[in-house]
Amino acid sequence: MAMNMESSSNDLVNEVDHVDMLDASFDAYGGVIINIKHDMDENVFTTLLQTSISQWRLQGKKGVWLKLSLELVNLVKPAIKEGFWYHHAEPTYVMLVYWIPETDHTLPPNASHRVGVASFVLNSKGEILVVQEKSGVFKGSNVWKLPTGTVEEGEDISAAAIREVKEEAGIDTDFMEVLAFRQSHKAFFSKSDMMFVCMLKPTSFDIKKQDSEIEAAQWMPVEEYANQPFIKEHNSFNYIAKICIAKKDNKYVGFSPLLTTSATSAKKSYLYSSYQLEQ
Amino acid sequence: MAMNMESSSNDLVNEVDHVDMLDASFDAYGGVIINIKHDMDENVFTTLLQTSISQWRLQGKKGVWLKLSLELVNLVKPAIKEGFWYHHAEPTYVMLVYWIPETDHTLPPNASHRVGVASFVLNSKGEILVVQEKSGVFKGSNVWKLPTGTVEEGEDISAAAIREVKEEAGIDTDFMEVLAFRQSHKAFFSKSDMMFVCMLKPTSFDIKKQDSEIEAAQWMPVEEYANQPFIKEHNSFNYIAKICIAKKDNKYVGFSPLLTTSATSAKKSYLYSSYQLEQ
Repeated sequence: MAMNMESSSNDLVNEVDHVDMLDASFDAYGGVIINIKHDMDENVFTTLLQTSISQWRLQGKKGVWLKLSLELVNLVKPAIKEGFWYHHAEPTYVMLVYWIPETDHTLPPNASHRVGVASFVLNSKGEILVVQEKSGVFKGSNVWKLPTGTVEEGEDISAAAIREVKEEAGIDTDFMEVLAFRQSHKAFFSKSDMMFVCMLKPTSFDIKKQDSEIEAAQWMPVEEYANQPFIKEHNSFNYIAKICIAKKDNKYVGFSPLLTTSATSAKKSYLYSSYQLEQ
Repeated sequence: MAMNMESSSNDLVNEVDHVDMLDASFDAYGGVIINIKHDMDENVFTTLLQTSISQWRLQGKKGVWLKLSLELVNLVKPAIKEGFWYHHAEPTYVMLVYWIPETDHTLPPNASHRVGVASFVLNSKGEILVVQEKSGVFKGSNVWKLPTGTVEEGEDISAAAIREVKEEAGIDTDFMEVLAFRQSHKAFFSKSDMMFVCMLKPTSFDIKKQDSEIEAAQWMPVEEYANQPFIKEHNSFNYIAKICIAKKDNKYVGFSPLLTTSATSAKKSYLYSSYQLEQ
């Protein structure tokens, strides 16, 4: 990995010598992070970029990161002409990269997966929360399915499952376990998808369905859900339904979340496993 | 979700009426996929784009997708000026989007997670494969760690674990189970990270370490790995080490992969769970 934003220093390169160069800081991996704060003419940018890269080459620098906001879109074309390529983009910016050495680059890859959740919300009567969606592949099919949704940037899987159930059906829940997960490819352009089947315990019972996305929502015996022809005919859904029934019958153990602290930073993150902590 | 590449039709919009418009196809979600094959002058592009969007608005279209290769970088700026924004980017292209209706957009989000693997390779003597890395946070620390790596685009978790162990230490393995996984945030810019701890069974034993990334590699009793001060002092590593020891002692069950077929396409994907199939 060639860059770590958290450990980047703020040494200004253009204070090292008195050549006109682009503002930049260095990171712990030999990388340079260009810092453009104001509008810049394309020709001025190209000249400064060429001078700067020559200096950084002499200094033994490797990767060069150039983040261009929508306002700086005029600099995308000159950067590509100088040999930069796209690393990733978000709605408000594009990140371009350049590799100074003659070797193959060792820059970290872009995010490769979207993460989704499907929620198995089981009440004390052995019923689960099921929904019919207004759009998508199941539209108009009368298939009752588990509530699903996409995990948002920076959101925990457990929080996403709780949020989606509340949004789609107005039910409050406690997160219990991840029962299973599925990895699939080419889900979205060339990107892959991870879908976590989560078990949740409801703490409220009156359904208030979301009108914009949900056609219908109800409590249904888990066996009735599993017996729908659509579920039985499809290998992957059928298998997930069997896991849910085994869980209802207390014959299955999934992975529970444990809040841990990262070894290399103070950050908290959840570790999911079926390991029981000794008291 | 407003777009599915697989179900996009190839109806050419500019055959509908005889106005000069951009080549495009429609998808099943009311979306338009612009198709630019050759170099185009920026002013010509702007005129065609404006005419096309007017027509698509009359047709009730919603999202507009514009994929620009490195060669078409001159069109990024005029597209942004017309109200497009960045959706995502890969090394050879940037994907821009536009939303025609007055409502909030319902375009699918960009990939949000990187996925990594840490491999617990346990031999029949109760020893595990451990490595010391040449770079990164553990450089020069003398900490023996599990081999780790990033899952590549389109790669299965199980295949990635096998590949990394082969690359770093020259050991052939069979994939057994996912023992645990961890989700952490802000791992890389604003992106999150999913790390899967995988158990593998070695089918070869002579270590041939990779020189470029690995300082040293060896077999080590799992208890000796767990007793390293660095592991014991860090909550998350300590917990993973305990799971590994429990697995060695046959006191732990992780999630095993099962190859399934997707309910909505013919695609194969792995479902990971601890459910035992009835024979």
